[in-house]
Amino acid sequence: MTVEMIFVGTELLLGNIVNTNGQFLSEQCAALGLSVYYQSVVGDNEGRMREVISTALGRSDMVILCGGLGPTEDDLTKEICAQVMGIPLVEDEHVKEALEAFVRRIGLQMTDNVYKQAMVPQGAKPFDGTGDTQRETCWILPNSNGTAPGLVMEKNGKAAILLPGPPGEMKPMFMDSVRPYLMGKSGQTLTSALVKVCGVGESLAETMVLDLVDAQTNPTIATYAKNNEVHIRVTASAPGEKEGKKLLKPCVKELKRRFGDSVYTVKPEVTLEMAVVKLLKKHGLTMTTAESCTGGMVASRLVNVPGVSAFFSEGFVTYSDQAKHTLLGVKKGTLKKYTAVSEQTALEMAAGGAAANKSDLCVSVTGIAGPGGGTKEIPVGRVYIGCWLRGETTVKEYTFSGSREKIREYAASAALDLARRCMLNYFRK
Amino acid sequence: MTVEMIFVGTELLLGNIVNTNGQFLSEQCAALGLSVYYQSVVGDNEGRMREVISTALGRSDMVILCGGLGPTEDDLTKEICAQVMGIPLVEDEHVKEALEAFVRRIGLQMTDNVYKQAMVPQGAKPFDGTGDTQRETCWILPNSNGTAPGLVMEKNGKAAILLPGPPGEMKPMFMDSVRPYLMGKSGQTLTSALVKVCGVGESLAETMVLDLVDAQTNPTIATYAKNNEVHIRVTASAPGEKEGKKLLKPCVKELKRRFGDSVYTVKPEVTLEMAVVKLLKKHGLTMTTAESCTGGMVASRLVNVPGVSAFFSEGFVTYSDQAKHTLLGVKKGTLKKYTAVSEQTALEMAAGGAAANKSDLCVSVTGIAGPGGGTKEIPVGRVYIGCWLRGETTVKEYTFSGSREKIREYAASAALDLARRCMLNYFRK
Repeated sequence: MTVEMIFVGTELLLGNIVNTNGQFLSEQCAALGLSVYYQSVVGDNEGRMREVISTALGRSDMVILCGGLGPTEDDLTKEICAQVMGIPLVEDEHVKEALEAFVRRIGLQMTDNVYKQAMVPQGAKPFDGTGDTQRETCWILPNSNGTAPGLVMEKNGKAAILLPGPPGEMKPMFMDSVRPYLMGKSGQTLTSALVKVCGVGESLAETMVLDLVDAQTNPTIATYAKNNEVHIRVTASAPGEKEGKKLLKPCVKELKRRFGDSVYTVKPEVTLEMAVVKLLKKHGLTMTTAESCTGGMVASRLVNVPGVSAFFSEGFVTYSDQAKHTLLGVKKGTLKKYTAVSEQTALEMAAGGAAANKSDLCVSVTGIAGPGGGTKEIPVGRVYIGCWLRGETTVKEYTFSGSREKIREYAASAALDLARRCMLNYFRK
Repeated sequence: MTVEMIFVGTELLLGNIVNTNGQFLSEQCAALGLSVYYQSVVGDNEGRMREVISTALGRSDMVILCGGLGPTEDDLTKEICAQVMGIPLVEDEHVKEALEAFVRRIGLQMTDNVYKQAMVPQGAKPFDGTGDTQRETCWILPNSNGTAPGLVMEKNGKAAILLPGPPGEMKPMFMDSVRPYLMGKSGQTLTSALVKVCGVGESLAETMVLDLVDAQTNPTIATYAKNNEVHIRVTASAPGEKEGKKLLKPCVKELKRRFGDSVYTVKPEVTLEMAVVKLLKKHGLTMTTAESCTGGMVASRLVNVPGVSAFFSEGFVTYSDQAKHTLLGVKKGTLKKYTAVSEQTALEMAAGGAAANKSDLCVSVTGIAGPGGGTKEIPVGRVYIGCWLRGETTVKEYTFSGSREKIREYAASAALDLARRCMLNYFRK
């Protein structure tokens, strides 16, 4: 089945916003095994929208439209799509009631505009995630985060899926309704795992799975570089989720064997900082941070994990040599002899941070993020990361490239990764 | 002149990357006063690319193509575009030499594939930022950051601009060559200022400039919400830059008058943290940070400013009550009576941070970022931000909404903004 996407909204054409919906939907469709050949962006203009929608329905089996479902006069997606497909729109009592309830709940007044959103394709049925989607039917997709419901319009072997533009409404609607609708259409359930790898470069990771990718049929394997990590998506197609999980299992096991400790999770929702906090929790450890060039990025990522307060109480941002000495107890002799960007300083920062906070673990980061400050011996991008875990110390040297911000982001990821690996090693003994 | 954009690359259709080029080019074209009606994304497929390029050249005066200019067999943009426009391609000696020099410089071997990039439209001239672009000509745009040169193909009143896909090559090429080319085409120079406003909501800012926007002819005014700020772009069209600047001046002055201290810069390249560091430098102040829910975000943003080390030596991340007491000297009685998320705690954190670091200024942040932890009295999103500046204290209460991460980002921006405003007030007296 070929799919194409149309994003409606003048704000995209003016560059006011980045089309993150485009990436989300493309990634989701790829994970579902659908071939996306075209994407278009068009403004809130009747003539141009009609042209783009007609072209898309002419050349693809299915068109996903995103945006232009709201209550204003500019919102034309539903009306034009229905016209092009020759499907009449009628007011739906249930949608109308749901709209009224939603508007009441958020404390607003009902206006005529809002009622526009109660118009749905004639004969459309509410879709609750299950239902026979193989027969040609129009569907109403509930919107738990906004007023405009999503819609599926089907006629003459073509389908249009209409979704709201705000990502906070579109994404849950896709996951709750569109995904099961699409899986129902194919009669197959797609089950996937996301093997997240940190500390292995993209090209190396690709090489390491090349034979698996070449031999893939079901499950399929695809690698993505995401931030400073590599994510490997394994997707199995099967009549049910149970069978799918059974198909995934040996493949995920093999990837874990190949990448070892570099795999920090196989769950899509788990981030690197969550994996670190999970290990702290498992072993009952407290952690602190001693940061120079990352300037609080590592602490900030830890704090992004809800409930981290039981394991992380404070962090140190020691940007100057003086602060490294005063707050962390790095010896003045060390700073003088080896400079602030050195293995020795990183080690003393980690040990000093742990001592100052009386914590079980401390990671330290010191480096040159640039653009200035590099020398022949210590180039821009050189970062030393230390880890102190109950008296055992580890230090690693890295040379990152990119902008000041990129180098700092890489360093923060590497620091979280080192904390994770040190915990794994320590408790393996 | 109507412009349309085509982004070439299967990685976009698979959702491996976000189309940030789309936003950049859209924003730039809007700033140049060009109307963009359509954007398309298409994979590296000959038939589909030909279809999309033909359609675009049929309905628009100018098409900007991005991606598919590289050395591999998949890179087909130039070949197909030249075919569709009926323009022959020939090898260019100068481009060939430049390619060889570039490949030598980065220490790689020359391969046959690389020579493919030396093929340019017959009669194309190198474009160095100046030249008569009003007459129909093909141009070669130098690429200082990669191998593939950019190209302009013109024929029968239509123009195609071909740019490389990697943002690090595309963006400088656009600024250095495409922008002057487009301005040359119109015979007008566009000069713009970006009035960056912090601490004023998007709708309020729009209302405050509505009359100016409605009355606009030259310069034009447009507002954009960017992160936690509102940016107002003022663009003047004039025969030269000097005349343009003269046109901008009264409008920028009026915006500054209306928004007062909320304007932190009128330069596109200046960020909020840079504006803070600039004030520190101007008044010879040192600064520190005392962060709870932002967990190092404020410090991290300051550290992103090159050369900040003269003004910022250390920051405190005090996530627990204990750390607020030990590191910052917040009284146990204060934490007990008013709790950690209170005006009183924010004030004591700011004063304590400044004292501990012996700095002139300290901002503090304490709040509930959620998703849990909210009560009826102190809801999720409630954040108190304090500022201590040489003995003068200020504290503000905010209630932000959104995800944990969003709330923390808003709080970090508000903290930087408060530091800025406190310095302005202090030195105005």
